[in-house]
Amino acid sequence: MAATEEELEVLRTELLEKKTETEKQGEVVRALKGNKVDKKEIEEALQLLMKLKLEVQAKEKEITSKAAGSDGKGNSKESFRQQLNDTLTSRLFFIPAFKIYGGVAGLYDYGPPGCAIKANVLALWRQHYVLEESMLEIDCPCVTPEIVLKASGHVDKFTDFMVKDEKTGMCYRADHLLKDYCTEALEKDPLLTSAKRQELKEVLTTLDELNAAQLGEKIKEYKITAPDSKNPVSDPYPFNLMFSTSIGPSGNAPGFLRPETAQGIFVNFSKLYYYNGNKLPFAAAQIGQAFRNEIAPRQGLLRVREFTLAEIEHFVDPEDKSHPKFKDVADLEFLLYPRKEQLSMEKPVKTRIGDAVSQGVVNNETLGYFIARTYLFLTSLGIQKDRLRFRQHLPNEMAHYAADCWDAEIECSYGWIEVTGLADRSAYDLKAHSDKSNHDLSAFEKYAESKVFERLKITPHLKLLGPAFKKDGDTVGKALLAMSEEEALDMKAKLEADGQAPLEVCTTGKTFTIKKEQVSISKETVTEAGRKFTPAVIEPSFGIGRIIYCMYEHCFYTRPSKGGDEQLVVFKFPPIVAPIKCTVFPLIQNEKLNVVAKDLSVALTRAGVANKIDITGTSIGKRYARTDELGVPFAITVDFETDVTNDVTLRERDSRAQVRVPLKLIASVVRDISEGHLAWLEVLSIYPNVAPSQEE
Amino acid sequence: MAATEEELEVLRTELLEKKTETEKQGEVVRALKGNKVDKKEIEEALQLLMKLKLEVQAKEKEITSKAAGSDGKGNSKESFRQQLNDTLTSRLFFIPAFKIYGGVAGLYDYGPPGCAIKANVLALWRQHYVLEESMLEIDCPCVTPEIVLKASGHVDKFTDFMVKDEKTGMCYRADHLLKDYCTEALEKDPLLTSAKRQELKEVLTTLDELNAAQLGEKIKEYKITAPDSKNPVSDPYPFNLMFSTSIGPSGNAPGFLRPETAQGIFVNFSKLYYYNGNKLPFAAAQIGQAFRNEIAPRQGLLRVREFTLAEIEHFVDPEDKSHPKFKDVADLEFLLYPRKEQLSMEKPVKTRIGDAVSQGVVNNETLGYFIARTYLFLTSLGIQKDRLRFRQHLPNEMAHYAADCWDAEIECSYGWIEVTGLADRSAYDLKAHSDKSNHDLSAFEKYAESKVFERLKITPHLKLLGPAFKKDGDTVGKALLAMSEEEALDMKAKLEADGQAPLEVCTTGKTFTIKKEQVSISKETVTEAGRKFTPAVIEPSFGIGRIIYCMYEHCFYTRPSKGGDEQLVVFKFPPIVAPIKCTVFPLIQNEKLNVVAKDLSVALTRAGVANKIDITGTSIGKRYARTDELGVPFAITVDFETDVTNDVTLRERDSRAQVRVPLKLIASVVRDISEGHLAWLEVLSIYPNVAPSQEE
Repeated sequence: MAATEEELEVLRTELLEKKTETEKQGEVVRALKGNKVDKKEIEEALQLLMKLKLEVQAKEKEITSKAAGSDGKGNSKESFRQQLNDTLTSRLFFIPAFKIYGGVAGLYDYGPPGCAIKANVLALWRQHYVLEESMLEIDCPCVTPEIVLKASGHVDKFTDFMVKDEKTGMCYRADHLLKDYCTEALEKDPLLTSAKRQELKEVLTTLDELNAAQLGEKIKEYKITAPDSKNPVSDPYPFNLMFSTSIGPSGNAPGFLRPETAQGIFVNFSKLYYYNGNKLPFAAAQIGQAFRNEIAPRQGLLRVREFTLAEIEHFVDPEDKSHPKFKDVADLEFLLYPRKEQLSMEKPVKTRIGDAVSQGVVNNETLGYFIARTYLFLTSLGIQKDRLRFRQHLPNEMAHYAADCWDAEIECSYGWIEVTGLADRSAYDLKAHSDKSNHDLSAFEKYAESKVFERLKITPHLKLLGPAFKKDGDTVGKALLAMSEEEALDMKAKLEADGQAPLEVCTTGKTFTIKKEQVSISKETVTEAGRKFTPAVIEPSFGIGRIIYCMYEHCFYTRPSKGGDEQLVVFKFPPIVAPIKCTVFPLIQNEKLNVVAKDLSVALTRAGVANKIDITGTSIGKRYARTDELGVPFAITVDFETDVTNDVTLRERDSRAQVRVPLKLIASVVRDISEGHLAWLEVLSIYPNVAPSQEE
Repeated sequence: MAATEEELEVLRTELLEKKTETEKQGEVVRALKGNKVDKKEIEEALQLLMKLKLEVQAKEKEITSKAAGSDGKGNSKESFRQQLNDTLTSRLFFIPAFKIYGGVAGLYDYGPPGCAIKANVLALWRQHYVLEESMLEIDCPCVTPEIVLKASGHVDKFTDFMVKDEKTGMCYRADHLLKDYCTEALEKDPLLTSAKRQELKEVLTTLDELNAAQLGEKIKEYKITAPDSKNPVSDPYPFNLMFSTSIGPSGNAPGFLRPETAQGIFVNFSKLYYYNGNKLPFAAAQIGQAFRNEIAPRQGLLRVREFTLAEIEHFVDPEDKSHPKFKDVADLEFLLYPRKEQLSMEKPVKTRIGDAVSQGVVNNETLGYFIARTYLFLTSLGIQKDRLRFRQHLPNEMAHYAADCWDAEIECSYGWIEVTGLADRSAYDLKAHSDKSNHDLSAFEKYAESKVFERLKITPHLKLLGPAFKKDGDTVGKALLAMSEEEALDMKAKLEADGQAPLEVCTTGKTFTIKKEQVSISKETVTEAGRKFTPAVIEPSFGIGRIIYCMYEHCFYTRPSKGGDEQLVVFKFPPIVAPIKCTVFPLIQNEKLNVVAKDLSVALTRAGVANKIDITGTSIGKRYARTDELGVPFAITVDFETDVTNDVTLRERDSRAQVRVPLKLIASVVRDISEGHLAWLEVLSIYPNVAPSQEE
């Protein structure tokens, strides 16, 4: 695997020291030569210089190689990714869509194993969030009328900056060109000066904040050209990422494919609030397709034009963001990367989420609760704990209305990838739709007891003010209403004492004399049954395709074949997400064994266990290897000894351990371990273990 | 419920007879008056006439009312549908999408119970088809490049005929206007002549076949105007129903939202065939969104602009459409409506599917197998057996390339609705994509033994033919190649005997003399290892939203409240599809009971049972009524007696029967009955029954 940025920094410092040392030694040699000292002394100094130069070269080579991700054994990030992708596409986990027509960038098909994994991940998501948190799941159309996305801001602001090759017209994302330039320079040019290195790093950090003009300036400054043709590129300009269409036959109803599923929840807030018995907090959830017409998609499944989102909108009283179940997760510890640590270039910190909330690092319990639940969800899919972190948005990354935002990021061969956003979006979205639609999208909290309080009431009698002050009547009326409580009480006292009182109107600079009958000032009693407010929303939003891709990376490994002459590929998917839970095969080709195997496969299917039967005569070792490559966690071998009262062999993928289980129990055992009701360790302790097959 | 068409026909015949009688009596009266007979005799005849006229009126009223679906108690189809839809929308099974912005015709949201039902129906579909039939499920994008839909024919032919209001520009479907006109005339005008009635019926039957000109003619003939404004309408013209968009930033890559999911499977045929070990038959399946930009959507969930399809493409050798599992379903009997019965205006016939296939009514075993499996699937969802039929396409309904097509139709308040199409589409789709993409989409069957046979080989020696025949050389060469085996052997004999032979070339009318050296005629031995062919495809295609809506209609009923003063609404969803499997409530408001109820709810959730807790103090009867309205099949009541070792009451929705089940077993019992592993009747026989609550 590649070296971390920190390790590279150490190497670069060492290189710099070595270079300085070399330069100094060069001066020593020159000085010695000038002084015409003893030949032997010069020779020794020269040898040291030579040695230092060789060390500098070696160090440079080491940096270049480590920066490219090589570990010295040729297992670079790129070759790991290539091997993974070869397996994924050859076994149809995913493939480029419409391939026979040349394909379309950013559109992929999920083949049988990928499709099963996606269904399993979504089922787990439903169980983990919708069921366990009693969320209201809804399902809205992808086709969305323009007004909805106008209100949400997407029509005006959902853009990326694009540049065009000035000769071929080819389109590129401006920030990608700049990013690639900086990354390549940093990775492949180990001899950059520290100052330049620092500058490029700063560009990378602030990339998301640059406007069109700033991006254009940098592109000109670094003389960046179109990657395919090396032609000059245009100035950057905004391109809206939504796919547009037209709804109905008239051509007068513009629409878009939704870029996220959240808006469908917001526009239904009132109905969902009512469905929930007009009570807060509650969460609504939606799983569905979203669409972004990316300018130039790349990075495989990580940046696509159509993808599945699973989104939650948790509506809360902005004055009370506590969570009743926070205590259940407060003791969980995992990597947090708060703003402070990022800005001071420190590392993510393993933190107890309870502490992060109580210390104000995470804004509130509800947000903290969802961060912790997301940690549990992602790791249950097989994501490695030490390659998962929650990174807080920097102030400039966050929308102006947001209270706090964290991204779940997973480390993979492309770097740290955002797979889930967790944002406290305050009341922004509901307010935007309320304003645009003129529908009240507020909640009402009834007080346990009505609040009764006194309030000063000023009533200018306009019918008398008009005749008395002519054209100033209106101004005087407004000035009376604008009095502070103190001024009003003062006036009331004067009117009662003298029958009149002076009123200074600062807007006109005049003072008017008000008569007692021209205004009433009195106290009134007000009863308030409750308060009306727009709920805040905390939004965890999951990119399912990205999560699945990262899971592929974290579950993929190779191990030598029995002969040691081959590296065999394995996906160590947890049983609950594995596309096929179990294979069934007769030990050898034999009609009787085939019948038992087929009956067993039917029994497994009845029990809801996705299974695959393999009655080809291939060697048992090869059949195991085939199922390992699909990440099938269990394999049942039917051997000679089998009849109804007899046992079959059950083999676990990663340990390759084997046990003998009675045929009549095997279907329910495999169902229980696949659904997570029974652990493999328990199976090992219950049933007799056997030595692994000789062929493995 | 409404009268059937047959019952109405009887009434109409009676009416006609009564009218004839009345006319005759009128003549009798006029004759009597003319003859100046006895006053009393005239009066009696008049009274009879009056009586007959009243009877005619009553009969007309009866027909009008029955035709409109009223059964005399006010329970018309419309009021049933209204009551159902009120429940569905008020409990958020579904609601019009983007309602706060006025909504968009043909776009709906599924609220929490609808969304859960959809997830359950899809899970069942996956188990019933994908798992049990070992299908290859895939998942392709909705956004589709133009070329794919050009190949499939959708770009050119996926159209409906539209007319526009000539003044307002409002759009209508031409066939809908014509259909509405005919249906309304037939239903609401009981006095139409038989001939006219027959004519309108014929128009309705042939509606799908009419082209733009024919539709336009009928619209003119019947003087049909725009329904909203009564303005004249334009001539009909084709409108493509696909939503169009543009892929990528250049604007040069037109695309569409897929109108069906099938094409994604066809374009992947080679990869799937390879994945299946290059073996036929196999089936691929896909669940996903499809989009049709309907001209004027109506009928609620039955005709929408975005919907979920579940499609299967079963690839078979066109020469062998047998199915190994057909025998498992052959004895199933259900309503078939073959072409013959439709054309002779007979009724659907309850038929054993085994007989339908062996008698050639259904084209082949594979198609028959899927029809039977679909019958099992739909009835397991709660569709009533006697309101489900499989209707064969009439010759003119079927695409020219199709071998046989059947629609699963469910009777609901809108009539018989197609919910699943089952079509043997032959090799059409694969051939179309193969032609357009220049990719080989064929299969190869290896013979058990290679076939060796002799073949005649004719080799004209063009180098000699040219000089010999000048400008005719080419023609002679082609004529030699075109000889039949008999002609060639005849020539060979002549050449060997005489050294030359005559060749008559019919295209030129000339006869040429061929010399021995100008052509070689010999037998060669050919070895064929197998045959290459384009597979046929049998396509079952399920409209999930339509199925769900019909399920709502078939599961909906009302029953009187205990007091009898109210009709309570119930959905008798089978447990496996019910949105919530079980409610939990404490019998009365009590903190201890609440704790038990809450713990039980958590235990049910852990067991994967969707449940809802109700700790409001509402009466037990009202709480049952609330859950019945959501179709919750089971309710658990926690009462005073409960502690860990004690029992709770379990109530079944439709029978309202109650049993006492130990608290520690209840979660697993409810899981088993919800997932179909345990029948309610078994529960009744195992646990002590108790009298229903007094409040019900």
